[in-house]
Amino acid sequence: MSNFTDKLKAAIDEKESFVCVGLDPRLNRIPDHIKEEVVKEYGKTKEAVAEIFIKFNKGIIDAVHQHVPIVKPQIAFYEQYGHQGIRAYEETIKYAQKKGLLVIADAKRNDIGSTAQAYADGYLGEVDFWEESEFGFGADALTVNGYLGIDGIQPFIDSCEDYGKGIFILVRTSNPSAGDLQDLETDNGKVYETMAELVNDWRIESKGKNGYSAVGAVVGATYPQEAEELREVMKESYFLVPGYGAQGAGAKEVIPAFNEDGYGAVVNSARGIIFAYERKPWQEQFSAEEYQEASQAAVKAMRNDINETLDEYGKLPW
Amino acid sequence: MSNFTDKLKAAIDEKESFVCVGLDPRLNRIPDHIKEEVVKEYGKTKEAVAEIFIKFNKGIIDAVHQHVPIVKPQIAFYEQYGHQGIRAYEETIKYAQKKGLLVIADAKRNDIGSTAQAYADGYLGEVDFWEESEFGFGADALTVNGYLGIDGIQPFIDSCEDYGKGIFILVRTSNPSAGDLQDLETDNGKVYETMAELVNDWRIESKGKNGYSAVGAVVGATYPQEAEELREVMKESYFLVPGYGAQGAGAKEVIPAFNEDGYGAVVNSARGIIFAYERKPWQEQFSAEEYQEASQAAVKAMRNDINETLDEYGKLPW
Repeated sequence: MSNFTDKLKAAIDEKESFVCVGLDPRLNRIPDHIKEEVVKEYGKTKEAVAEIFIKFNKGIIDAVHQHVPIVKPQIAFYEQYGHQGIRAYEETIKYAQKKGLLVIADAKRNDIGSTAQAYADGYLGEVDFWEESEFGFGADALTVNGYLGIDGIQPFIDSCEDYGKGIFILVRTSNPSAGDLQDLETDNGKVYETMAELVNDWRIESKGKNGYSAVGAVVGATYPQEAEELREVMKESYFLVPGYGAQGAGAKEVIPAFNEDGYGAVVNSARGIIFAYERKPWQEQFSAEEYQEASQAAVKAMRNDINETLDEYGKLPW
Repeated sequence: MSNFTDKLKAAIDEKESFVCVGLDPRLNRIPDHIKEEVVKEYGKTKEAVAEIFIKFNKGIIDAVHQHVPIVKPQIAFYEQYGHQGIRAYEETIKYAQKKGLLVIADAKRNDIGSTAQAYADGYLGEVDFWEESEFGFGADALTVNGYLGIDGIQPFIDSCEDYGKGIFILVRTSNPSAGDLQDLETDNGKVYETMAELVNDWRIESKGKNGYSAVGAVVGATYPQEAEELREVMKESYFLVPGYGAQGAGAKEVIPAFNEDGYGAVVNSARGIIFAYERKPWQEQFSAEEYQEASQAAVKAMRNDINETLDEYGKLPW
């Protein structure tokens, strides 16, 4: 069973890219021509929403798959349309993997042991299916929230070992009020620092050949000083770094999330890539019909921005 | 718009019951006669799993709805079967509400602001639907995880106000390793105590007529001393109390979660009620075909156990 971080490193090397594209569709921002075509067949139904999401996502995946190692569909945007939305989520994962992409299910799941086991089975492993078992969503990795402690995390770690999967535990989130709880001073540093030490403790023994553990961390790009310090604490963990682009962080802010070897982080952008067609500077060059070209231009620019900045700091591995 | 806690108090008074039934179906524990009947029609498919869950849950709801104010389907057990599982989740919510029950979606959702908004819309409010909007799951309340701070919670609070819904924020969970993070000592008490103060700060202004806020807390019955202290901090919040029964807590352990007025808590049991037919002491009295009767007997016993113990402590309101 290949380790998740070995697969991730191979994909990063192949694409020469640390970009993760957030596949977070929103009905009112998807180009009209896609919606109109689907509505003709399905009407204005939730089934139509699912078909629109699938069609849009496939278009984005086709446009970006040669330029990024990994994508991250945020399940909230699908789940809000109920079972039809979840069908779109399943199809999106399948299509991305078919196109050679790794997929992080961004679901930030968390619960007590037996329920965490159900989530782990559903996202990363196999579910009870009469006498046998069957794969669930089959994602390559999952984001999780560690507020419940190790017995709520262990089932996910077990799935990492059993199925060659990865997890990213929330340590330092990218939002403005991240500090309400995460910045509280404890006997052992701030809460997020303790979470980082727990993540480091929870690294699985079976590390990848590349030296990284399948237990990673979410560390927001909007807090670069914290990222630098966290890089020291969790040397063998990959960081999933949200906050680049629409949330305000640039390439300089994401550099501290990388190790000296140039690995150890993937940087997510959602709106800035998938809705590039309606955002600066791309909106002047591309129409809504050219949303794929706009996304490809945006993703190449982001890849280059990060790679060039890594190079400036002597961290580019190639 | 009626406040969630007013609806909850009315339901508690009507049923004279503080019991919440956890609707957490597991394929391998559902009576064979239900599975066999469905498989005849649908084969051994995920569609069949959904139909089995719906049929089983309807049976449980029919058996318990006169004896409890509220039910709590844990979404992990549905979600692991993908979109078919989510269809069963939707049908379960609808049927429970049709039978006069309030429904807590136990999903422990958490994310940054814009994504938290998507979850809030999906579970409690209305989602973007072309020129209009449409209700999502339509649950009456949702469990949420506050690790991301207020901007990840505010969208849920807004939904409480706009739609007469409730939330239960994880404060002190019922699992053995709850303390890994929650027990860390900060300048301001332990992490869970700070979370409790945040919950108290986040109470919405628009309290119910009964004096309770729509912003509640999850406080595990397995930590009764902590519950007693937390009751003081969050006087105007309802507690959702997991841990009774299968997790080892009895009625005495849940009493501290109640206020002196006898309100302020609902006590959840899942396995102990829904799979009563295969558990002590009911397995000797009931066959698998009589799983409804077993669940009804178990729920009545739990209701009486809690009410009698509340009475002993002078907290029974009737």
